[in-house]
Amino acid sequence: MTDSAASPADATAVIRQAIPMLGHLGLEVLSMEPGRMTLRVPFAGNQNHVGTMYAGALFAIAEVPGGAIAVQLFDPTIYYPVIRSMTVDYRRPATTDVTVDAHIDAADADRIRAEADANGKADFVMNLEVTDTGGTVVMTSRGEYQLRRHRPAD
Amino acid sequence: MTDSAASPADATAVIRQAIPMLGHLGLEVLSMEPGRMTLRVPFAGNQNHVGTMYAGALFAIAEVPGGAIAVQLFDPTIYYPVIRSMTVDYRRPATTDVTVDAHIDAADADRIRAEADANGKADFVMNLEVTDTGGTVVMTSRGEYQLRRHRPAD
Repeated sequence: MTDSAASPADATAVIRQAIPMLGHLGLEVLSMEPGRMTLRVPFAGNQNHVGTMYAGALFAIAEVPGGAIAVQLFDPTIYYPVIRSMTVDYRRPATTDVTVDAHIDAADADRIRAEADANGKADFVMNLEVTDTGGTVVMTSRGEYQLRRHRPAD
Repeated sequence: MTDSAASPADATAVIRQAIPMLGHLGLEVLSMEPGRMTLRVPFAGNQNHVGTMYAGALFAIAEVPGGAIAVQLFDPTIYYPVIRSMTVDYRRPATTDVTVDAHIDAADADRIRAEADANGKADFVMNLEVTDTGGTVVMTSRGEYQLRRHRPAD
């Protein structure tokens, strides 16, 4: 994402191309800087059987940043992120658009890169809060990811 | 779902109408009987940045059955299910269609209904395995749901 996504609109396009389902969800990058992204998923189109936001749409906005920020921070020709596990806790029903602000700080990024270089892989965790437009936390999440080095070609 | 979904095709239509995102995912009910459903999500259209099934598609197939089976078992004019939390563990990359077989047995259903009648709500848990077409478990999940009685109208 480093080269191809200079703006939030570019990053949105790159993410939706990588994972088409995120386009159906209407996921958007609102702002970004190195190691940080703010994302939004609209309420419209993402409702469930009781008129609140579908659990899977809330999952998606919390799951994406671990991978997207890793692709932004770590050269994707050398490294790629995968998700290992995810726990989501639904706190309040969401009835508006929702946002999440996620980051990996510079010291963590250095640790992750060094460990992946030494061992071929490095685990990292993202704890996030998804909020509605009134600032209420509607879901919290804990995602466990792994950054891996591409194996050399045979 | 009891009345409106006599066949798996009917149930698929009801679920996709309740949660439009599940139509985008291509989620399908393959078979059903009282308290039990087998679901499928296709690989086609649900890929991620590394060519395996998107984590959110795997989440969705495991999240749906708790609600869908509850709607089937418990009269939706009296009760409705909500999800409280969900933990998913990604075991192997999925590169085929995936299925899940989920059930709530009769004794559990009786306990859940009685507790909701007594307290207005009842917690229940679903532990599931999502498998690929070769039978490999690609993801396990633990979902915590709650069955609630509709409050009487004011």
